[in-house]
Amino acid sequence: MSWAILSWCTRALPRKTTRLASSLVSTLEYPTLVFIRRNLYTQVAENCRIGDGVQLDDFCRIGANTVIGENTRVGRFTEIGSHCRIGSFVRIDSHVLVDSNTQVGNHCTVYPFAVLGYPPQDKKYKGEETSLEIGNRCQIREGVKVERGTSWSNKTVIGDDVLLMSNVYVGHDSWIGEHVTVANNVSIAGHVKVFPFAVIGGHCALHQFVRIGRGAMIGGMSAIRRDVPPFCLVTGTPPRLRCLNYHQIWKKVGNHPQRKWMKRCFDYLFLNKEDDAHSSFGPHRESIFQRAQNLLFQYALQQDVACDVSRDVIREICTFILDSRTNSVRGLLTGDCER
Amino acid sequence: MSWAILSWCTRALPRKTTRLASSLVSTLEYPTLVFIRRNLYTQVAENCRIGDGVQLDDFCRIGANTVIGENTRVGRFTEIGSHCRIGSFVRIDSHVLVDSNTQVGNHCTVYPFAVLGYPPQDKKYKGEETSLEIGNRCQIREGVKVERGTSWSNKTVIGDDVLLMSNVYVGHDSWIGEHVTVANNVSIAGHVKVFPFAVIGGHCALHQFVRIGRGAMIGGMSAIRRDVPPFCLVTGTPPRLRCLNYHQIWKKVGNHPQRKWMKRCFDYLFLNKEDDAHSSFGPHRESIFQRAQNLLFQYALQQDVACDVSRDVIREICTFILDSRTNSVRGLLTGDCER
Amino acid sequence: MSWAILSWCTRALPRKTTRLASSLVSTLEYPTLVFIRRNLYTQVAENCRIGDGVQLDDFCRIGANTVIGENTRVGRFTEIGSHCRIGSFVRIDSHVLVDSNTQVGNHCTVYPFAVLGYPPQDKKYKGEETSLEIGNRCQIREGVKVERGTSWSNKTVIGDDVLLMSNVYVGHDSWIGEHVTVANNVSIAGHVKVFPFAVIGGHCALHQFVRIGRGAMIGGMSAIRRDVPPFCLVTGTPPRLRCLNYHQIWKKVGNHPQRKWMKRCFDYLFLNKEDDAHSSFGPHRESIFQRAQNLLFQYALQQDVACDVSRDVIREICTFILDSRTNSVRGLLTGDCER
Repeated sequence: MSWAILSWCTRALPRKTTRLASSLVSTLEYPTLVFIRRNLYTQVAENCRIGDGVQLDDFCRIGANTVIGENTRVGRFTEIGSHCRIGSFVRIDSHVLVDSNTQVGNHCTVYPFAVLGYPPQDKKYKGEETSLEIGNRCQIREGVKVERGTSWSNKTVIGDDVLLMSNVYVGHDSWIGEHVTVANNVSIAGHVKVFPFAVIGGHCALHQFVRIGRGAMIGGMSAIRRDVPPFCLVTGTPPRLRCLNYHQIWKKVGNHPQRKWMKRCFDYLFLNKEDDAHSSFGPHRESIFQRAQNLLFQYALQQDVACDVSRDVIREICTFILDSRTNSVRGLLTGDCER
Repeated sequence: MSWAILSWCTRALPRKTTRLASSLVSTLEYPTLVFIRRNLYTQVAENCRIGDGVQLDDFCRIGANTVIGENTRVGRFTEIGSHCRIGSFVRIDSHVLVDSNTQVGNHCTVYPFAVLGYPPQDKKYKGEETSLEIGNRCQIREGVKVERGTSWSNKTVIGDDVLLMSNVYVGHDSWIGEHVTVANNVSIAGHVKVFPFAVIGGHCALHQFVRIGRGAMIGGMSAIRRDVPPFCLVTGTPPRLRCLNYHQIWKKVGNHPQRKWMKRCFDYLFLNKEDDAHSSFGPHRESIFQRAQNLLFQYALQQDVACDVSRDVIREICTFILDSRTNSVRGLLTGDCER
Repeated sequence: MSWAILSWCTRALPRKTTRLASSLVSTLEYPTLVFIRRNLYTQVAENCRIGDGVQLDDFCRIGANTVIGENTRVGRFTEIGSHCRIGSFVRIDSHVLVDSNTQVGNHCTVYPFAVLGYPPQDKKYKGEETSLEIGNRCQIREGVKVERGTSWSNKTVIGDDVLLMSNVYVGHDSWIGEHVTVANNVSIAGHVKVFPFAVIGGHCALHQFVRIGRGAMIGGMSAIRRDVPPFCLVTGTPPRLRCLNYHQIWKKVGNHPQRKWMKRCFDYLFLNKEDDAHSSFGPHRESIFQRAQNLLFQYALQQDVACDVSRDVIREICTFILDSRTNSVRGLLTGDCER
């Protein structure tokens, strides 16, 4: 690969800085270097497109065919691979490594020592050309590692407005929805799906192929080996469903749902209390799929009891449960699960 | 910001190295670079004060208005922000990032990939000017992250002689006392207070606003959600108070305290055994605050039973408990706590 | 230390790149720099031996007396200390730090932000000259830290074909056997022995002086405080021996062993069921060492019951148990251990 500065690249830098140290450049026939104000040895490969107002700090390197949007800043000692697409108003700090075929959306912030789009830790990966896509307004803190996909799905996806705190690891082929918050030192193994608005506490480890439902909340230091239904709160060792994540429900739906009715639904679905063999929703001893079906069937009936909002929450939980019968690899987490 | 080499900066470097590569510098009118022995492209901003014998390695950058004490060494690719105060005889390794307004005491060692004084992960933080203060003789290992404060307290403080092992995270507005040892991969959330001589085992996670008493010891992989009283030992999942941390008590007080009497005090305070409804210290069924008060009241009386040292330890524990009634956000950890 | 480019170093680089920017070099009498194609400011100290086809990327630094085998690549901003021996066909990525006296075998891959051979976190370490040895075909992922030894054993050893996933920490004087896999965020404290083919799940913490037997498997997020016998599977909080790691047994021995007979042996050894006071192997209530001896004694007798493969597995377990009586510092983990 030849490192060359494109003629229009100079446009992206403040006028004062475009004077190249021509004498020095002539000494080195190759590579051509940008010797400009505060930009020592910034290397830009061929066919890059760099927007207006971009600031490339010293010693950073941009690979071939990469597109960087306007007003983006790239720190010192940072490397961005080839065929990347970095959005506008992105701030990539120093000492960041972005491998090839990575997309970063607009207004993202990437802190130092983050590693984005590196080869997966999967032993089956043999160097296929896969990618990593990161949405807009994401915050990626220090030391975060996000791998690119394998040939299984070809890409790892991080949605908009995601916050990955320091040292989070996101494995290959994972899909993280919008507005997800992941606290420090969480490891998200490969093939995981985290639906929007979920919150994952610090030091958690998510097993391969696990799915975390929308608006679910997982307490710190939990080892999650099974699917977590939407709007549920998980804590403890071993982790169990404790109750509904009312905070998230209120925040999202902006309405006061019938708390009591929802609690009864939750208890019926997940807390299989033997002494209470038959509730108003149906018999307890059935499988969780039948119980979800029972509840879903009564969805239409209970219009007088529950408001639309709370019924929608319960319907989403039931649908997730039924869906997990066919799509889940790992089974469902319940309130009384023993390992 | 303009990067310039200060005239007296050369004083700090060995005499042989002060010959600037003038021809090269003239080519680049801006920034002025230090082209000296083993100091390629070291950048020092204006108004810095750099002590005698300071060694700045290649490619490191020092921000404006920063003070570096004598005989301090700064490694390659390291960045120190503006308005920092680095003490004397400090060794900052390569690839370290120190953000603005950070103070580091004398004789500290900072290992590679540490990130000091970066913006907090608190969503409420809006870029206020806050700081991080690190004491003397601290050891900060590889990959440690210490955030600066928020407007809540304006600063994060690390005391003297603290050892932060690799990958430790210390959140905003935390206060770590002297001689604290924090093992690998521990996450200390925001607003935490760790009193002197405490030892925190590997992989622990400390909840926000938690307080760890003086000389307490926390076993590895504990999720600490409540205050830990002084000189207590915490282990298990969920974590509980197990006994007094006699090792710490002996080490600090250098005396053989009455172990049996102290054990009885501990049991009375924290292990609420129902079958033993009344001890010599008072009734068991009272709240922990009343039991602490009972014990504190008997402090004067038991001069014949216990020596000064062991009574001081018990008094400190009782005071911590009573203090936690008003100052603790999170409640107290006890010996039989269930979550 | 003086930085000089060796005359035969140029041999290692493509012919086109050997033209030094002599005018620039003459300006700087010291250090001598390599100003070649894509090799800006690569520094090679004296007495290095660098093999054919080696690629040293920009800004990397090689210490004195270091040997680098042929076709090895060293990334940007990487530092390799003095007296290191890097094998052939090694790929060391950018931003890697390798301290002095480190050996890396052939065909290894070291990912960014790894720290190899740095001083141990042991407070007793006073700067003795110790080393780190890494075998062939190892994969060392992002942010891995492997410390060098202390004067206890003088070296830390990583065997061949080891995979250390991201953020793994390996402490001083540890010994990791061949084909061991260590998942994300595992901390292996000092003096640990991990025998070949063991698998350690993510977020585990291994206590000092623990020994993990051959082919053992440890589930994620376990705090291992005692020795784990060979071919056993450990999960749970607190961690316990659950069963034999049949997957590993089959994989290694390539034979279908008598599963039922092995299960009975395992139950006799580790699951001390009180109701089953006497099994065909001998009385239950004896110590685990006696039970291992009983089983080992019957090893010769049971030729008709069990095939050679399964008897070898059981013999290895019994030998490990008996060996732990004399050599183990920490005691044995069993199936019904309570802490």
